[in-house]
Amino acid sequence: MTGYGRAFEAMRGATGPVWDAYVRHDFVEGLRDGSLPREAFLHYLRQDYVFLIHFARAWALGVVKAGTLEEMQACSATVNALLAEEMALHVGICAEAGISEAALLATEERAENAAYTRYVMDCGFSGDFPKLLAALAPCVLGYGEIGARLLREKTSDTYADWIATYGGAEYQGLCESVGGLLDGALERRYGADYRNLPVWDGLCATFRQATALEVGFWQMGLTP
Amino acid sequence: MTGYGRAFEAMRGATGPVWDAYVRHDFVEGLRDGSLPREAFLHYLRQDYVFLIHFARAWALGVVKAGTLEEMQACSATVNALLAEEMALHVGICAEAGISEAALLATEERAENAAYTRYVMDCGFSGDFPKLLAALAPCVLGYGEIGARLLREKTSDTYADWIATYGGAEYQGLCESVGGLLDGALERRYGADYRNLPVWDGLCATFRQATALEVGFWQMGLTP
Amino acid sequence: MTGYGRAFEAMRGATGPVWDAYVRHDFVEGLRDGSLPREAFLHYLRQDYVFLIHFARAWALGVVKAGTLEEMQACSATVNALLAEEMALHVGICAEAGISEAALLATEERAENAAYTRYVMDCGFSGDFPKLLAALAPCVLGYGEIGARLLREKTSDTYADWIATYGGAEYQGLCESVGGLLDGALERRYGADYRNLPVWDGLCATFRQATALEVGFWQMGLTP
Amino acid sequence: MTGYGRAFEAMRGATGPVWDAYVRHDFVEGLRDGSLPREAFLHYLRQDYVFLIHFARAWALGVVKAGTLEEMQACSATVNALLAEEMALHVGICAEAGISEAALLATEERAENAAYTRYVMDCGFSGDFPKLLAALAPCVLGYGEIGARLLREKTSDTYADWIATYGGAEYQGLCESVGGLLDGALERRYGADYRNLPVWDGLCATFRQATALEVGFWQMGLTP
Repeated sequence: MTGYGRAFEAMRGATGPVWDAYVRHDFVEGLRDGSLPREAFLHYLRQDYVFLIHFARAWALGVVKAGTLEEMQACSATVNALLAEEMALHVGICAEAGISEAALLATEERAENAAYTRYVMDCGFSGDFPKLLAALAPCVLGYGEIGARLLREKTSDTYADWIATYGGAEYQGLCESVGGLLDGALERRYGADYRNLPVWDGLCATFRQATALEVGFWQMGLTP
Repeated sequence: MTGYGRAFEAMRGATGPVWDAYVRHDFVEGLRDGSLPREAFLHYLRQDYVFLIHFARAWALGVVKAGTLEEMQACSATVNALLAEEMALHVGICAEAGISEAALLATEERAENAAYTRYVMDCGFSGDFPKLLAALAPCVLGYGEIGARLLREKTSDTYADWIATYGGAEYQGLCESVGGLLDGALERRYGADYRNLPVWDGLCATFRQATALEVGFWQMGLTP
Repeated sequence: MTGYGRAFEAMRGATGPVWDAYVRHDFVEGLRDGSLPREAFLHYLRQDYVFLIHFARAWALGVVKAGTLEEMQACSATVNALLAEEMALHVGICAEAGISEAALLATEERAENAAYTRYVMDCGFSGDFPKLLAALAPCVLGYGEIGARLLREKTSDTYADWIATYGGAEYQGLCESVGGLLDGALERRYGADYRNLPVWDGLCATFRQATALEVGFWQMGLTP
Repeated sequence: MTGYGRAFEAMRGATGPVWDAYVRHDFVEGLRDGSLPREAFLHYLRQDYVFLIHFARAWALGVVKAGTLEEMQACSATVNALLAEEMALHVGICAEAGISEAALLATEERAENAAYTRYVMDCGFSGDFPKLLAALAPCVLGYGEIGARLLREKTSDTYADWIATYGGAEYQGLCESVGGLLDGALERRYGADYRNLPVWDGLCATFRQATALEVGFWQMGLTP
């Protein structure tokens, strides 16, 4: 049990082995036991900066597609947190690691990076609000699951800061909110039995494809 | 019974008096009994030319948002019919009426015109494929209903060409296709009992607002 | 001189008499001299609440379409201000006027209201970032111009709160920011001589149509 | 000289070595000399079927974003050709190769496949019409360049059908049309000197990223 809500639980369950390929990827295990090469981590951070820009765009698209004021406000708060805080935090972490903001901005986006974020954007543009959330969920909630597990299981403090960020109370609280947003979005549109509707299969397929693209992102992280 | 499918029947039923305000608008009655001033009709034709451009864009958005190859093909065929045939037909009708193609292209779009088409576009961008169809349906199928009735009830031949276009077999066949597309789109996503889901109320509200904007379009037609 | 930047100045200049029809509309003059019927003002407030929701969506679309981090942050800050503050403020004003939040949420959106916001949304979806801003500008900056003038010229305190909001330093500062955002967005994409490019004519046409739709919004305000 | 227009020529010139990495990829050379394993070719055909669906969606988005009737008609004709003819052709080729239509529809989309098409879709949604075309151009026109060269340089007839399709007069004519559409779209918006505007750099970056994603698509083709 992740505690991130009913829908996430069910989507994850329907995803099959690709979920573990994501949350237990070699990159993740390297964060856990400190064996991840520093160069790979820095490469990941640079790509993640570009990622965050498109991630913020995707949450802004959530504001556009939301159906209630509460949904709008939840998405808007996330956009604002990403653009006003998370990006600055990221710039700070990178600065400590010797990567200047200019270097971050000059990062050439890798295909595996674009693949995930543009897939999310297209789900958002083409589908409805739940479709967008289903594409976003593997990232937000997967990181939460990874962070929580690594906080318990880490055998090295090399990447303790990263683990503390995603395993910590603040990010875990965000995951609970996003999980609740997904649950509510589905019920408000499709009723309580949404898992018996055809649309559910499409949402699970979206979640699975997004998860597969996250596996690609980690894999890219290993090959600077 | 219109014969345009289950969903249209139900949405129209949920729309209330605004439906009749649309399909029995003074403009429509003026087409029926020939009392519509020629100037109003020509003004309507000019605005309708601009309308058709955005209408084609909306159906193209349907291709973007469709979930199956059949849905894509149905929307694409409509776009192509509009751009490759309907527009040319329209240009021809206007030419006979003394309006040049240059004059058509120079038509300043009236607010009541923009109101409907942009509402449809935004439904399409913000919602899913059924939402887009729910916004398109009052136009496509309402014209079908109007054409069929006027063919039976007309007391003048002044606007017989217009009536023959929308009351005729070809357009009526299109209406049956679009009605079937809507029925199928809903069932493929929401199952057979979609009318019991919360999403149904939103679709009916979209259909009703689109109908109200069509009333505004007729009203504009009366005030060149 | 409005002080809202070069591009706004030029677009307004290219708009012709419809600009004055907007900023000197009878509704506006009624705010200035207090002659606007209370019922019309309350009706306007209710419609404006629905308007703000779509206005926030349009600014969120700005985040999606922005080309630089600064552009994203500017749009995101506006979305957040609208959803986290302005809406609450609006609810407060309406509460004082005897309109409950439930009543606000139940407001049926008028066609003239939908016409403007959906036009903006479609400009944003169909065009690029400057196109979206050109459609938003008449609202943001027109209200700034109206507020500033009414603060100087008002002959009654009946609507002093409304006038103080839009004529006051905070809103005027926002207008300067948005004007600068528009200037920068154009120069960053089209260079300093953007007014000599064909795209400029399209942007001015968008600005003009948006202004015309704002006239319709005021007109609607007079007819509860 | 490719004969596909000024803008393509210039964008290709600005792309650097990644262009050759695309049009002279091992997959392409394997088509030329017949050394491409049959299994890889069939795998490519299956993925290409999924690709065509999203490619048609992207051209439909072109209809939505076009600025003139001619632009709309050009995009619509392409959508229609893809959905009404190309898909059927593809199904036929696959059937001959022993892949049923059911198998095609069941193809699991590979990440490298999604990466390109969703990148194109997002360029279209976020940018203007030229941006969408800049993202589409490497595919349409690159295949034209490859087809034309392989028709001259092939040393085996194993993949003669494929080569004849893209090197043949019909596809080459399409390339000239699309090249002209791109030229016209740029000039109509940005004037004849568009290459001196800042927006040009962004368009070239889009073209380059799309080309890099096409390299990934060929690479995927080699790894069934």
